[in-house]
Amino acid sequence: MTDVLTGTAVQVAFYEELAERGLLLPSGVPGLYGWNHTFEAVRVAVDGLITRAGSDVSESMHFPPLLPRRRIEEIGYLQSFPHLAGSVFSFEGDEDDAVAQAEHAARHEDWSEHQHMTELALVPAACYPVYPIVASRGALPEGGVVVDAGGGWVFRHEPSEDPARLQMFRQREIVRLGAPDEVLAWRDAWSERGLGLLRSLELEAERDHASDPFFGRAGRMLKANQRQQELKLELLVPIAGEEPTAVASFNYHRDHFAVKFGLQLRDGDTAHTACLGFGQERITLALLRRHGLEPSAWPQTVRRELWGA
Amino acid sequence: MTDVLTGTAVQVAFYEELAERGLLLPSGVPGLYGWNHTFEAVRVAVDGLITRAGSDVSESMHFPPLLPRRRIEEIGYLQSFPHLAGSVFSFEGDEDDAVAQAEHAARHEDWSEHQHMTELALVPAACYPVYPIVASRGALPEGGVVVDAGGGWVFRHEPSEDPARLQMFRQREIVRLGAPDEVLAWRDAWSERGLGLLRSLELEAERDHASDPFFGRAGRMLKANQRQQELKLELLVPIAGEEPTAVASFNYHRDHFAVKFGLQLRDGDTAHTACLGFGQERITLALLRRHGLEPSAWPQTVRRELWGA
Repeated sequence: MTDVLTGTAVQVAFYEELAERGLLLPSGVPGLYGWNHTFEAVRVAVDGLITRAGSDVSESMHFPPLLPRRRIEEIGYLQSFPHLAGSVFSFEGDEDDAVAQAEHAARHEDWSEHQHMTELALVPAACYPVYPIVASRGALPEGGVVVDAGGGWVFRHEPSEDPARLQMFRQREIVRLGAPDEVLAWRDAWSERGLGLLRSLELEAERDHASDPFFGRAGRMLKANQRQQELKLELLVPIAGEEPTAVASFNYHRDHFAVKFGLQLRDGDTAHTACLGFGQERITLALLRRHGLEPSAWPQTVRRELWGA
Repeated sequence: MTDVLTGTAVQVAFYEELAERGLLLPSGVPGLYGWNHTFEAVRVAVDGLITRAGSDVSESMHFPPLLPRRRIEEIGYLQSFPHLAGSVFSFEGDEDDAVAQAEHAARHEDWSEHQHMTELALVPAACYPVYPIVASRGALPEGGVVVDAGGGWVFRHEPSEDPARLQMFRQREIVRLGAPDEVLAWRDAWSERGLGLLRSLELEAERDHASDPFFGRAGRMLKANQRQQELKLELLVPIAGEEPTAVASFNYHRDHFAVKFGLQLRDGDTAHTACLGFGQERITLALLRRHGLEPSAWPQTVRRELWGA
């Protein structure tokens, strides 16, 4: 068992060291930070390393941090993860309403009554915008497709003092759509490739089966099923907790998204899908923790992987 | 006077052409798009051009698309732009509430009653996270500072069929904090530099005084004041509207943010601030409109500016 208090103390100390050195710029809200040039340079280099590993990508797409609210309704995200979702609210009203709202806000009082739900929600997983776009093109081509969905911002409403648990972070995402055997083989091959990638940075990475943080009592069964069916693989690396932290996941969805969005193979069968996500800030934090806060002093082999020198 | 209907028809036709060619990936919500690799490659090159122009930058910071709600309360954003702001709501409730929420959502019914205001809001201007961080360090150093705030995502709740009017876009932002004369000179010099930068891409850019879209009756006076005091300069480029579109702005805030955040000069006087923002998607759209949808066929001089070849 992890000693949570000890773990947390180490995490907070690491967080304070990062903030003191200016690598992390606290916003005043737990799990929401800015970063300085040094942090960003490492993150960009990690992103580049993943790009170079993705020679199987057939197409790139880039998405904003919001998606249509209807999408998370369709996907059923609120059934599984109601506690993590974020929706966007906005003002609808006349000049008097605006004055009242501004007065409440200026006094830091509740101004939520003036805000109304918009058509938009925060992206909960960087693969979600991909499915309806690919589905709108008709049946998948022979061999399926591999979509690089870029380094999109992802929201999870889980405020924490752990600098590795962010409310808003960048998930480098690649999505595979195709026949069941192709998709599963891709998922497994990429988990191996990801393990090699992290180890090439001299991180003590391990692979394990995992489950998503499904909500509530019903969620416990979903977690057990997911683990039993080996649908989710994670790569775990020590950061500042007592236990290693998941920095990448490789998820086989079977026909879950394909059924929802009508993704078909050429022969009319339902496609299968998988996605992978690398947590860019977590990998950056793992590197800073492992090799120190000054990247120019990192081992030559690690610098060569990241910057070619 | 602009013929709005004609303008809109041309804009919609441009939008349809972009979507058909796959450069723009419609989400189903006006003003929210994804982009393909070609679009993104141009945007990244434009971003690089601005980086190279910013030799006066003393420090870089990178921020997520959210900021503490308290920040927009402090800044008074809701007084001036209540119609553009976005706040983040999230679920707070037990398992029964979660079931009710998911059922409403699955039927595309209203589930807003289950969502509650969080501590987070969408970033309304990419310079906002910078001021409290610089203020927390004490008085500005001699000569002030120039902070590159990166290419941050910015939210404006103004759904539109014009592909150049986005609800979520990337504003490449640089912020100047210092003595009044330094700050004003910087603002003016950068507006000139920006004009040169756009013209080097063979865009028909013009500079003009402008005003922000302040809300309501009181806003009309704020607009007039801003224009009269020449606080806001814009660079305008033809895209698909009848009138040119603003693609960059250069804003002198006098002591507006400095008073709010306690930004001081070394002698104890209140600092002044200015910021500039380049609208990355708008500049990309202007280039696609001007030079065609195939960047490999753009004029050699333009390609050299963007990609060095």
